[in-house]
Formats: sequence, structure tokens, C-alpha cells
Amino acid sequence: MARSVYIENMPLDQALTLVMNRLQAGDALRIQEEEIEVQQALGRITAEPVRARKSSPHYPASAMDGIAVRARDTRGASETSPVLLKREQHFMEVDTGDPVPGEFDAVIMIEDVNYKDEDTAEIIVPAVPWQHVRSVGEDLIASQMIIPAFFPVGPFEIGSLLTAGVAAIKVIRKPRIAIIPTGTEIVEPGQETMQAGEVTESNSRMLAGLCERWGALPLRQPIARDDREVLRDAIRQAARQADMVVVCSGSSAGREDYTAEVIGEMGELILHGLATRPGKPAIVGMLDQKPVLGVPGYPVSAALVFELIGQPLIYALQGLKPPQPTVLPARLARKLASSMGVDEFVHVNLARVGTEYLAFPRNRGAGATSSLVKSDGVLVIPRGLEGLQAGDRVNISLNRSLEVVDRTILAIGSHDLALDYLGNILWKKHHLRLASTNVGSMGGIMALKRKETHLAGIHLLDTATGEYNISYLERYLKGENLLLVNLVTREQGLMVKPGNPLGIRGLADLARPEIRFVNRQKGAGTRILLDYLLKTKGIDPGQINGYEREEFSHLAVAAAVSNDTADVSLGIYASCQALGLEFVPVASERYDICILRDLLDEDTLEALRQAMADPEFVAETLGFGGYNLDLSGQVMWRSDS
Amino acid sequence: MARSVYIENMPLDQALTLVMNRLQAGDALRIQEEEIEVQQALGRITAEPVRARKSSPHYPASAMDGIAVRARDTRGASETSPVLLKREQHFMEVDTGDPVPGEFDAVIMIEDVNYKDEDTAEIIVPAVPWQHVRSVGEDLIASQMIIPAFFPVGPFEIGSLLTAGVAAIKVIRKPRIAIIPTGTEIVEPGQETMQAGEVTESNSRMLAGLCERWGALPLRQPIARDDREVLRDAIRQAARQADMVVVCSGSSAGREDYTAEVIGEMGELILHGLATRPGKPAIVGMLDQKPVLGVPGYPVSAALVFELIGQPLIYALQGLKPPQPTVLPARLARKLASSMGVDEFVHVNLARVGTEYLAFPRNRGAGATSSLVKSDGVLVIPRGLEGLQAGDRVNISLNRSLEVVDRTILAIGSHDLALDYLGNILWKKHHLRLASTNVGSMGGIMALKRKETHLAGIHLLDTATGEYNISYLERYLKGENLLLVNLVTREQGLMVKPGNPLGIRGLADLARPEIRFVNRQKGAGTRILLDYLLKTKGIDPGQINGYEREEFSHLAVAAAVSNDTADVSLGIYASCQALGLEFVPVASERYDICILRDLLDEDTLEALRQAMADPEFVAETLGFGGYNLDLSGQVMWRSDS
Repeated sequence: MARSVYIENMPLDQALTLVMNRLQAGDALRIQEEEIEVQQALGRITAEPVRARKSSPHYPASAMDGIAVRARDTRGASETSPVLLKREQHFMEVDTGDPVPGEFDAVIMIEDVNYKDEDTAEIIVPAVPWQHVRSVGEDLIASQMIIPAFFPVGPFEIGSLLTAGVAAIKVIRKPRIAIIPTGTEIVEPGQETMQAGEVTESNSRMLAGLCERWGALPLRQPIARDDREVLRDAIRQAARQADMVVVCSGSSAGREDYTAEVIGEMGELILHGLATRPGKPAIVGMLDQKPVLGVPGYPVSAALVFELIGQPLIYALQGLKPPQPTVLPARLARKLASSMGVDEFVHVNLARVGTEYLAFPRNRGAGATSSLVKSDGVLVIPRGLEGLQAGDRVNISLNRSLEVVDRTILAIGSHDLALDYLGNILWKKHHLRLASTNVGSMGGIMALKRKETHLAGIHLLDTATGEYNISYLERYLKGENLLLVNLVTREQGLMVKPGNPLGIRGLADLARPEIRFVNRQKGAGTRILLDYLLKTKGIDPGQINGYEREEFSHLAVAAAVSNDTADVSLGIYASCQALGLEFVPVASERYDICILRDLLDEDTLEALRQAMADPEFVAETLGFGGYNLDLSGQVMWRSDS
Repeated sequence: MARSVYIENMPLDQALTLVMNRLQAGDALRIQEEEIEVQQALGRITAEPVRARKSSPHYPASAMDGIAVRARDTRGASETSPVLLKREQHFMEVDTGDPVPGEFDAVIMIEDVNYKDEDTAEIIVPAVPWQHVRSVGEDLIASQMIIPAFFPVGPFEIGSLLTAGVAAIKVIRKPRIAIIPTGTEIVEPGQETMQAGEVTESNSRMLAGLCERWGALPLRQPIARDDREVLRDAIRQAARQADMVVVCSGSSAGREDYTAEVIGEMGELILHGLATRPGKPAIVGMLDQKPVLGVPGYPVSAALVFELIGQPLIYALQGLKPPQPTVLPARLARKLASSMGVDEFVHVNLARVGTEYLAFPRNRGAGATSSLVKSDGVLVIPRGLEGLQAGDRVNISLNRSLEVVDRTILAIGSHDLALDYLGNILWKKHHLRLASTNVGSMGGIMALKRKETHLAGIHLLDTATGEYNISYLERYLKGENLLLVNLVTREQGLMVKPGNPLGIRGLADLARPEIRFVNRQKGAGTRILLDYLLKTKGIDPGQINGYEREEFSHLAVAAAVSNDTADVSLGIYASCQALGLEFVPVASERYDICILRDLLDEDTLEALRQAMADPEFVAETLGFGGYNLDLSGQVMWRSDS
């Protein structure tokens, strides 16, 4: 046993071939069948061809409500010489679906029958033999194949099978996939307070969802601690109840990562290390004639490894191949570097611009679950390339329907909660999806300059004039066709601990020597505002304890106050709320959205206008607090071009 | 109450507007919510925007396995002047995901650390502040919207929500749809013997499947007899437990059709009669602030009415609009007549020919469940048009993925079981779908002539030569690029009752006066064969009792024998088998497939060849009996062109 093949960096196609061949040779991809009732079979896959057991109709059936007649009895009927038919002797009433008795060979629609008396029917058009009679087997002939093996059963198939007298069919049994979350620090959902280092277990639930999408039955196992024996037991138990085992996390080279070793000891290690980014620390093994898959801990890596390797295995366990993703040709919006040695998978957002699609690479952080949620598709930079250039033609495997992609507005820039409220209204009432990414105001300006976004949220103070945003656009986006619209005016304030124990009332208090401040990074809108306010109030930054300590987001400074590594910071009301801090307002600032007019059509622009004026948007934003909407929806500026 | 609006023939758009407005005014389209665990939410629709409850990460986290350090302690490190760091004082080990304590501000990857002794780490590259440290909220910021209201929850959303500390969410409660099958003659599935007139209930199961596809929970009710009081009780009970009631069948003007009246008496009848074909006898009403829908009994009509009216209602109950079907531009293969007064919905098959798709209308019988199963899409002929011409550009709403459509082979002609076996192999091993329609051999020749099919199964005897098929192709398909390949040689024989009580041994027995024969229609391959055999054997058709009685299929004549309205008929072994008759072989005939070479590419042709040679095809066909495969796969003839 335990033929351990340790591979460090295997190209994907080679790895897939190796894995499939070894598992097939080891009989670890067995297809199993079960018989179920047809009405329970929606979405299931047939295990064998299904044949009609009865013909449909199984008797000559009336296709209409009317009377069954002998065609020859109606010969010559016309308006001038109507034919009179006698009940029993010449006709009988039939409803749709009723059998047409052997002595009759046609049906006349009730609309064409004129009853002279209860037992006498007058006919003025002769019947053609077999008119309105459905012959035996017209729909389905007994023994005829209705659907082949390995075919998905839909609502129409269910109707047809029942009609054909088929009450039960053999289908592929859903492969059972045991998913083992591992790690000492991971906790189950719903825990109110978490220590630093504790993380809610989510990968196993994400992979379980993917299993269901792929026709399998996920069996999520309890969390296994980072302990070799615990992991062994968990894998052994999982292999007993499932057709395949997936071990979440524990596949990199961290001190507590035993997965590959344990699989090698218990069974056969087939693959360890994939030449992809992300996804490198993938593991495939075999135990008791069952595939065992180890996926990395980072969500984006876990999803990728499960899609690249788990999906073909789960389909193979059903005798199927994974469906081809829809591929959309697009043009890359900006340069992307990549390593020569790996196939790199990059999540992108897509936007339709004129007749083509632009693909905007998302941040490549493997920990970003938000990237998975917001991604429109995936771009592959094949190994052997050092990267791609802006403008290169690329193929994107879509993650969502083209219809939704076509109705997506990209917002890359500074983020504000009000943008979320707006996005909610846009989706709910205009079926437009707002995909926003937080890169700060200056990041937004740069995204606009590179035409990588439809719009950007910005709040940039010109300290020379006290005016917002416009001078920045004039300076950095000269010549672009821009529209600057106010979304909200928001309060910036001092964020202090609940109850404000140090009695901080305004910016002047920052100079008190016992007070620990934490600052935002240079260039941040809030930092610019602080410096401006200090200057106008004549406060010397040198007096402020912690002025040099920088954090990179509203939330990071709020967190510093919340964790008591600082006493106060400047930020927006929403961050205060998020961490349960108290808020001392010191200034208002304009948060505008700057729209690249060339990229948004008039209908979408109108939807944006309507969403900003929507009473629900207004109520939610004002209800949250820290905002006023006096300028909301107003055009602050537009470019000449 | 009971404001009864009887409408006979209302155009679809007008009907939809009326129905939606009345139901909305009557508050019958209420959206209901429920709170469920996130891990149970796959495929569900959010009822409100979902916001992050915790940031992710919620603490500064190591992005790598390595050591946490202070960047300033590593300043100036290089190969020539390495920096030595002391455990506790200068560094601590961290794994991916571990918190980076406040006193440190960077992580160095374990690969870049050289341990001099257990407590001393040597560094030769300085760390940049915050390198390999994931800041608080890098992925998700507490209070940030993750997904808006009315958004579908997929595997990635589940991962992201759990990561953001969201354990439960409010989703749209699945609308409960009570489906009442009605009719005295319908029976539940699984009944072995059925009387003429009895039909297996299948529509409610088909509609239940559609409900599930559309996000609803079907509640299938017991069969209600055709009785006014029974129907009333069934509707009342259904309305109590469901958000919408669907009554199957009972919506035309048959004697037992009370549905519209009963709905009008119990509540409000909103619509009765839709200007569509099929689907005319659609009913919509309202009862206890709930929609009640009546659908016709024919499966194709039932499916259409449920898609046209049921689907928008079920989506509205979830606050959604139905997804737009994928529309494929195609060219109509043959002329289609239609009534001016109705929107006509025609199921079509599609085949890719060069760069365009041809749409082949299927038989328009509303009773054909096989049409629903085999349909690739639906064509609408709008009211106001008398029809469409062959070659017209049309838009087809697809019923299946374009990928499958692109891999479909159409076979229109005479049907044989062996074609089913072939179709099974083609799907299973070549992922090619064989969509076959039975129109007889001459029908197949005509379909080839109109280029409406890729291939046709034919078995046409030239009575002058005793040869099969070729002379017909030369006569009717002159100038076409054809390939004639044998599929099977099959036995034709006399079909007699089990045990052969009349001792029928051959064609000569047909002349016995006590024996009742039933014939096939003129032009049928089997009829041609019979006449040929009678002539060669010198038997006078005039002597055969029942020679004039014609049925239109193998199965119809077999059914006549089985039902004892005849004693014997000529047909193929498979029909005998289907109805449990006994078989007396009298001749062999060639069943060939004639392929239109211009419409099939070389790969598909090769797949056909392989499938015919496949051991599984051979075993299944021979195993069934009545076939020999001596010529199978051989080219019988090819055209000069």
C-alpha cells in the first residue's frame, strides 16, 4: 500500500490525467444506481435508457369533446342536405380523452353538432375517417425509448414517463461527498464573540453548496482539530459513509498540516502540489477505493481547487462530464503580470462597453470571499506567459448569466454604506447590479482614468479651497467625459469608546498628552480632512500623540479604538456604528459619485437618478444616521467634453 | 363577491395585465419571508439586504506561514549583513490566519527565515511594513452589504456570509402551490392494467416539477373526481394550505368541466379563455386573496398555460420576474400556417447547418408528451399573422442548452427500436443526442427532400426488383447528397394472439374465411411488403377477410389483435413484443438510415459509425430479438453528387 508520489508543482492537465487514471485504475470512481419513483426524479440522471411500458394513448381516444360517429354515415352532409344521426345507432357523446368504441371511426366537435332533439344530431359537414381520433401510440409506443441513459430528468420527462406507464426508474445514486473541516481555531457559525485568530468555518459549507450544484450529496463532518490522530479518525470515518472525502485546509506547509502525510500513510498519495495560482497546495489521494481530496484553506483557493479537481471527480462518479462554462470573449482592461510556471486564475468583473466586453481583474487576494461573490467570471493566464497586456483579447468563463453581467454597474473607489443602499434599490427596482470595490478615493480616480469602472465614489477635499472633488477631477481626469453627482453628505467625527470615558469633545482634545490617537494613511480623504481641520484650527500635529501611527481604513482605526490600542480616531459614523463606538461629529464632507459618461447608457443613468430619489433609499440612509441628503442626486459638476 | 368576468379569447399580454392587476389589487400576490440558517440557504432568495456582522479578518492576520516581526528591526538586512532576530524579543512564529500581535507589523515567509539556533532567526531581506499581514476588514467590513434583497444565494454567498459572521438570514419563503388533479378516469401511477379511457395522472407531477424549477414548493393534492362538490371541497382545502391553487384539467367546455364556474361561485373569476394555441381554455381566478389557476388537460397545453401564466405568478409571489429565456435566431425549415386570432406556440427541433440554425416544427398535437421531451425550443407565431414561410427568420426560445442543441442529430422517418438503442449509445459515449420522430418511411423521404432532418429511417421495398430503398431515393431525392447505411435487417411476421389459437403458420392462412385480418394503410412499407408477398405467392387479396380495414401503425394493428377486433396482422417483432403477441416470421426487410451528407459533419458521421459498431448496440439489438446485423453499418448506396 501507500505508494507515495510526492509532486511539487504539476501542471493542471497532467495532474488531471494522473488523478483520473490512478483513480480509475484503483476502481475509485464507481457509478452507483438506485431505483426511485418517477415523481421523485426531478433533476436526477437516468442510469439506463427508459422505455415506454404502455402506449399513449393505449386506446383510440377522442381528441375533442363531441360525438363519435362512423365517417361513412356522414357522407354527403351539407347545409342544403344535412345528415341526421340517431343516438346509439349512429353516434355517442364523447369527451376529450374518452375511448372511441370500435364501431366508430371519427369524432365530430360538439360545436359542429346541432341537436334536433335529445337523440337526434344534425350534421352539415361530412366527417373524414379518423378525424379527431388519437390513434393508439400517437404520442408514445410501448417499448419505445423515451430518454437514454445518463439523461437529466426534467418536468416534461416526468410527465412523459408517467404517461407511458413508467412508475419507477433507475437513476444514478447521488455521490456522497464527506467534507471534513480541519483546524483548531475554526468555530461553528453563530458564535457572538470571537477571539483574535478564531475564524468562522465557512469553506466546508461553500464546498457543500458546490457539491449540491454538481448533483452530489454533501455530508459535512464535524470540525477536526489539528491533530494527526484526530484527522486519521475523521478521514477513516468519512470514507466509511461516503463515496469521496474532502479535507478542507491543512494542505499547505504550515506546522499543523498533516493532511498529505496522513493520506499517504492511510492509503495512496497521488498528487500534492498543483502548478496553478491560487490552488497550489492541492492534494489528491485514494483510500479504500475512494478519492480523497485536500483543498487549501483560503476560500478563493479552496473554490478553485474544488472546481478544477473536485468537479470532474464528482461528475465522473455520476458517469458524466462537467458542463462547459459559458465563455465570453472580452478585452482586458489593464495589464496583468503572472508567473511563467503556473496557470493563473484571475477573477474579473465584466462591463459591456459598446459592442464589446471589458474584463476588469479583481484583487487577487486568495482570502477574499467578497471576490468570489462579486466575480463575474474567471480569466486564465496559461503558464508560459509572463502576463497579459491591457487591451489583449481574452476569454472569460462566466460565473453568472450574461443577462446579469449586461446589467452590472461597476463602482470602484471609496466605499460608503449609502452605496450599498443604492445597490439594493438598483437591484430590487431596476434589476441592475451594482458591483462595488473599495480602493479609496484616489484609487477610484485612477480606475476612472484607466476606464476600468463605470463610476467611482470619491470624497477628496481641496485644502486650498475647502471645495470637494472637482479640482481633483480637473487635475487627474482632463479630457474625460465625466458627470459628478452627489450621493450623500456625511459626517466625519471623532470615534471614541462607549461612554466617552476621556471626555473628548472636539479636535482640540487630540492635543491632550494622555490621549492616544491613531491616524489614517497619507493620501486618504480622511487624512486630508484632518490636516485641513488642524490647520484651520491652528492645532500643531506634533502635539498629537499617535499622529504618526497610520491605519489604512476607517474600520482599521475604529478597530484600534475598540481594541484599546488607541483612544480616539477620525472617521465616519458608519464605522463607529459597526464597532459600537461613540461618535463626536466634527465636520461634514461631500461623498460624490463620478460617472464616466462614455461607459453608461442613458437608461442606466436614469435608473441611478431614480434610485437616488427613491423614498426607500432616502429612508434607509437617513435612518442609519450620520448622513444628510440635501444635495443627493444633484449634479455637482460636469466636464466640458 | 364573485364578480364574474367571462372572457372568451383574450390576447396574452392583455390577459397578463388584467390578471396581475386584479391579483395585486386583491392582495393575492403577497411575498412572505422566513429566517433560515445560512448553510440551508443554497438557491434561496434574500428577503432583505444582508450585511456583514463582523469584519473579515476581524484582527490583523498573518497571510503566510512564517514569523511576525517589526519591520524596523529588519532594516538594512542583506546577504552580506544579515540581521539576527531573537525569539520573543524580535519575532514569534505564526501560521497562515494567526493573529499578528500589536507589537509586530510584518510577516516574513518561513522560506525566507534561516534559523541559526532554536531561538535565533537570520534574515537577509528587510521586511516592508504590513507585508503578508491581512488588515482588519480586508475582505469584508462589518456593516457592509454583501448581497442585496431579492438576490439568489449560491455557494460563494454562503461562504462569504458565514465568514462575515452571518449565521441566519431572511429569505423569501417558497410559495406553496397546491396542485389538484381532477377527472374521474385518471389513475395514480403504477397501476398494471388500465381500461380504455383510463389515463395515468401525470400533469400534476409535471407542473410540480416546474414549480420546483421556479423556486416554489408544490403540494400535490389527491385526485378530485369530476363532481362539483368534490371540486369545491378540494379547492377550499387547497386554498387553506397554499399560496396559490392550480386545478389540472377541467378547463375546456366538456360536460364535466366545472372549474371556471366553481371558481366564479367561490371567489372571483378573472379570466377564462386565452387567445393562444394551444392553451385556450386557461382559467384564472382569486379566492381568499389567493390566485387560482385552471390549466387544460392536454399536456402540451397544460405546460404552456403554466409557463405563460403560472410562471409569472409564482415569480411574483417571490418578488421576482421570470428569467428571460435564451433566444436563438433561426431560419424556419418549412411553412407553418396559423390562425390570425391567436398567438400560436410551436415546439421545434433545431439543427445547426453551417453558420445558422434551422428550426423544424414538431407535430402540433397538444397531447404529445413526447413533443415536450423532444422539443429544443418554442417558436411563437404572433396573432395577426396567417403563418410563416419556409426560410423566414424566426426567434426560438430555447428549452435546452445550446451545447446540447449543437450536438443533436435529427431522425425523422420510420421509427425502429434499434434507433433508440443507437440513440442511447450516441448520448452515452459520444454526447450526441438523437431526436427521432416517427412519420413513416415516405414521410422520412419527404423530410429529407425538404432538408428538415439530418437522416431518416426507411424500409421501402421496390416491388419491381425486390430491392430496398435505393430506387425510392433515386426517384424522390434526385440531386441530393445522400448516404444510405443499413442499420438492421428486421423480421416482418404475422402477429397472432398468445398461443396462436387459430394455428396461423403463414400468409396462406390469411385466406381462411374464419380469420379476421387487419391491414396497414396504403403507402406504408409493411403494406407494400404484404402486397408484394401476396403477389409472389399468388394469394388473392380479395379472399382476405379484413384486407380493406386499415390502421396507421405497427402498434395500431397489433392493438387490434390484442383487443380481439382482429386475429392477425403483419408487423415487426418489436410491436408483437410490446403487446405480448406471438410472432410468425414471414420475411426479412432492410431498415436503412438515409443521411443528408450536407447537414452532418464528418465527426458526427464517424460517431454514428462507431455507435453502430459498438458492442453494446449489437448486444442490445440482438438481445431484443427479431433483428440481424449482418449488413449493419454497411454503406448500401451513395448518391453521385
